[in-house]
Amino acid sequence: MYSLAVSCHVMIAHSFVGEVFGPAQRLHGATYAVEVELRRQELDSDGLVCDIGCALATLKAVLDDLAYRNLDEVAEFAGRNTTTEFLAGEVFRRLAAKIKAGALGPGTAGALASMRVTLRESPVAWAAFEDALG
Amino acid sequence: MYSLAVSCHVMIAHSFVGEVFGPAQRLHGATYAVEVELRRQELDSDGLVCDIGCALATLKAVLDDLAYRNLDEVAEFAGRNTTTEFLAGEVFRRLAAKIKAGALGPGTAGALASMRVTLRESPVAWAAFEDALG
Amino acid sequence: MYSLAVSCHVMIAHSFVGEVFGPAQRLHGATYAVEVELRRQELDSDGLVCDIGCALATLKAVLDDLAYRNLDEVAEFAGRNTTTEFLAGEVFRRLAAKIKAGALGPGTAGALASMRVTLRESPVAWAAFEDALG
Amino acid sequence: MYSLAVSCHVMIAHSFVGEVFGPAQRLHGATYAVEVELRRQELDSDGLVCDIGCALATLKAVLDDLAYRNLDEVAEFAGRNTTTEFLAGEVFRRLAAKIKAGALGPGTAGALASMRVTLRESPVAWAAFEDALG
Amino acid sequence: MYSLAVSCHVMIAHSFVGEVFGPAQRLHGATYAVEVELRRQELDSDGLVCDIGCALATLKAVLDDLAYRNLDEVAEFAGRNTTTEFLAGEVFRRLAAKIKAGALGPGTAGALASMRVTLRESPVAWAAFEDALG
Amino acid sequence: MYSLAVSCHVMIAHSFVGEVFGPAQRLHGATYAVEVELRRQELDSDGLVCDIGCALATLKAVLDDLAYRNLDEVAEFAGRNTTTEFLAGEVFRRLAAKIKAGALGPGTAGALASMRVTLRESPVAWAAFEDALG
Repeated sequence: MYSLAVSCHVMIAHSFVGEVFGPAQRLHGATYAVEVELRRQELDSDGLVCDIGCALATLKAVLDDLAYRNLDEVAEFAGRNTTTEFLAGEVFRRLAAKIKAGALGPGTAGALASMRVTLRESPVAWAAFEDALG
Repeated sequence: MYSLAVSCHVMIAHSFVGEVFGPAQRLHGATYAVEVELRRQELDSDGLVCDIGCALATLKAVLDDLAYRNLDEVAEFAGRNTTTEFLAGEVFRRLAAKIKAGALGPGTAGALASMRVTLRESPVAWAAFEDALG
Repeated sequence: MYSLAVSCHVMIAHSFVGEVFGPAQRLHGATYAVEVELRRQELDSDGLVCDIGCALATLKAVLDDLAYRNLDEVAEFAGRNTTTEFLAGEVFRRLAAKIKAGALGPGTAGALASMRVTLRESPVAWAAFEDALG
Repeated sequence: MYSLAVSCHVMIAHSFVGEVFGPAQRLHGATYAVEVELRRQELDSDGLVCDIGCALATLKAVLDDLAYRNLDEVAEFAGRNTTTEFLAGEVFRRLAAKIKAGALGPGTAGALASMRVTLRESPVAWAAFEDALG
Repeated sequence: MYSLAVSCHVMIAHSFVGEVFGPAQRLHGATYAVEVELRRQELDSDGLVCDIGCALATLKAVLDDLAYRNLDEVAEFAGRNTTTEFLAGEVFRRLAAKIKAGALGPGTAGALASMRVTLRESPVAWAAFEDALG
Repeated sequence: MYSLAVSCHVMIAHSFVGEVFGPAQRLHGATYAVEVELRRQELDSDGLVCDIGCALATLKAVLDDLAYRNLDEVAEFAGRNTTTEFLAGEVFRRLAAKIKAGALGPGTAGALASMRVTLRESPVAWAAFEDALG
């Protein structure tokens, strides 16, 4: 299995609901370094998993919808804690939708086997979500 | 599948038995940067794989039993080479026991699918152990 | 000249005033990986620049006053943009005051020549402040 | 499952054929930081996945055949784009052949379950190839 | 003294003339992770060393002139070895000229005290050039 | 001013004398990632601060004298705490002597202005020593 991964980052504010979060119940924020790994059984005729420029642009487009936002005020996230693991899943779902719609080129969506999205929130913690594509 | 990972470090001394180890047969030491990845199919009602504070505290408790020790003098390791890969397995087994005993909260142990423990021993080498939990 | 450096991190929310900041005028946040380098001409009688445990605890105490805060609501920062470079200077000033008050031990404050505080805000940007101590 | 990983690097020149590559159709180059992860169900009698010195030497031998080369002039790569993902596969295949031939010791080849080769080409992109061994 | 630093990367091909270079006399290439640190005594009225967006765009403009090039064919470099240390100096000189011409805003050039350009060529080597500005 | 830096690592055991060291009074160990930065006003006729191969070999020779050792048993260190900052100074002094003796080539020693040796002992701490050369 081949993998290609690209990375970018995003800076957001949010707060959490629940005693388990301690001081993180207060409004605070995070820089997330976001890495997307795309997996494919065989390379395409150019020798690629996918066009790396398209992969970076697609990731950037997904992150731009979240960038410099207070996630507490984003309608889709109402009633949810936007934890790092939840956001990893959310970035996965938004990227998967764009890939299915052809963002990485016409033949690529069907050829990709799976994807993993990793968000590094600090030097000592990260979260990820991975699943099959297609 | 969701993942949450936390990291910490530990500094130990040890020596190895066997010609394959060359100069590492002498008493020496290492700093291990230790990373634990916990995997779970669905997030809990707070949006978490587990309480990140508990995960860090549990990892620290396991490492504190090894920290600033000469592993050659630790009874449980008698007759064994405490290689990086062996120690990755050992940290896994000690963490798994604490998780099973409830260290990450009452409902978490049963919900976790698997765990991976990685020990980075130098800029050019690391070892890991992973297995299912439960 | 000898240096000793320790690092920790802090997560905050804030917004900026001024067109130069573009989308960062909105409420957002950051994880800052904070590194403090302490410099000294000669080591003390233990062979140290200072007690590394004290250095880490003092840095943590300074960061805990900022951690999980919306800096827009912190009184001392009223009317200021809490940019990464400003915060590097602020952490420096707060650390310098604690060091002068003896946080690193009785003889250490007078022996330290200078200090540098670095805040990494993302994989592509960091800021620092450095100055003499004493 | 236990893992042991070692890393090294290699610097090469090459160009790509195909409009999808944009400016990378011109002759350029890359530093690849190369990481090899070897996986094994049980450790050997020394407590090892394999001799780490042999693993590093075998990786270095494979990379030395590519080092400081213009890959456009290497006969085996004629007619192919030497993309990062292709090269990850190529390093895998060359390492797997050496392992099968005994480079990691007589009993090791049969005991290894799988291998993953990762090439980091820049701070924002990497590619990998992984497969079973044996 | 305050610092602000930004980073980007560039991929090039080149060869070296001189026996000291050994196999690097052959045409090969490199990924350079490039970091620029700008230093200033006092922050501007926005609390900045300079506009971070401008700093990144100016660095990118300088690197784009080198990106995906065989430096052996670049006229300005004829008769010179484009070593990492030489290129650090060259990026410094090109950035300094753009800054002097106003790339970081009208008042910034005169306020900057010094600059440091670092190029990381591999996990085990980097080079830098620093000097006063103005 | 130009800089060239190379890095390597070393694994040792040691213990410390003095209550300030807490649990580190016990025999333990460390992996030190060691980085040496060499500074020079003008490049040589090859475009170099010095031969990077010589710099790496000289650093490795210095570290090999310490590698896989219990520093408590090394005669030169008797009566001293081999703290990270002390060891940074010691590696500096040993490298400076080799450079003066011609390890980096006949003309290089006189041309180097200064050197900085950094030892990273863990993800949260490092120490350094720097001074003029010549």
